[in-house]
Amino acid sequence: MTTRNYRRQDCPIAFALSIVGDQWTILLIRDVLSGTNRFDDLQKRLGISRNLLTRRLKQLVADGILIKRQLPNSRRHAYWPTPKCTALRPSILALAEWGQSWRGDAGGTRVEITETDSGRAVGVRFCRLDDGQEVSPARITVKRISG
Amino acid sequence: MTTRNYRRQDCPIAFALSIVGDQWTILLIRDVLSGTNRFDDLQKRLGISRNLLTRRLKQLVADGILIKRQLPNSRRHAYWPTPKCTALRPSILALAEWGQSWRGDAGGTRVEITETDSGRAVGVRFCRLDDGQEVSPARITVKRISG
Repeated sequence: MTTRNYRRQDCPIAFALSIVGDQWTILLIRDVLSGTNRFDDLQKRLGISRNLLTRRLKQLVADGILIKRQLPNSRRHAYWPTPKCTALRPSILALAEWGQSWRGDAGGTRVEITETDSGRAVGVRFCRLDDGQEVSPARITVKRISG
Repeated sequence: MTTRNYRRQDCPIAFALSIVGDQWTILLIRDVLSGTNRFDDLQKRLGISRNLLTRRLKQLVADGILIKRQLPNSRRHAYWPTPKCTALRPSILALAEWGQSWRGDAGGTRVEITETDSGRAVGVRFCRLDDGQEVSPARITVKRISG
């Protein structure tokens, strides 16, 4: 894959994209993080070929982003996010915020992030690391709201 | 381009990736945002073909991410980021933070974000939108530090 070449650059952004920069990969991670875990369901949501989805899933398992586990009482498998995967949430939600700011239409599905306990609105922002004001990723709720 | 197809999905993440999801595009934006503005310099930094770079720049100008302007006293042009482009900084810096967390080696170039006035360390984090604690994007400094 072409994005593997990014690793020749000594840059953490290039490194990140060498893993998540292939086409469909971030959208696939988006769906696993929002609870779609089975191959057939992922394929339906993304509308890509089974071959391409197989390749992407295999690579994400190899890269430690997803874990593949057999479903109980079934021969089928499902895919689960690792901590390395959930750590991508700020990047993906920052893209969501950018997308809804610049999409240029009032309608369309929006992503709403809130603090789970208080219901207060949360965004991905620049935050001082020493003042304890950041909201833990474990304490946020993400909802998709149809436009 | 394939990522244009993402727009068929009603999703702000897919919309964002329809604009910045093509290969090399985010790395190109990274370089323009850090002050590399001329075609030849961008080509050298990315190491991609002139044709591919031309296509990517043209698309980013068409999408309102970059502005192309003639340099004074020259026939040459340079590329400048629009507000729509600088608004991508949280997404790109969140990827940088993820990359340096999960790269698995202590060495390598790191990206350091600080609050310009105070020098305090800053990160891209989940932040309550109503408590005035976020650091304005205009008040951060980003440095690349060689490993």
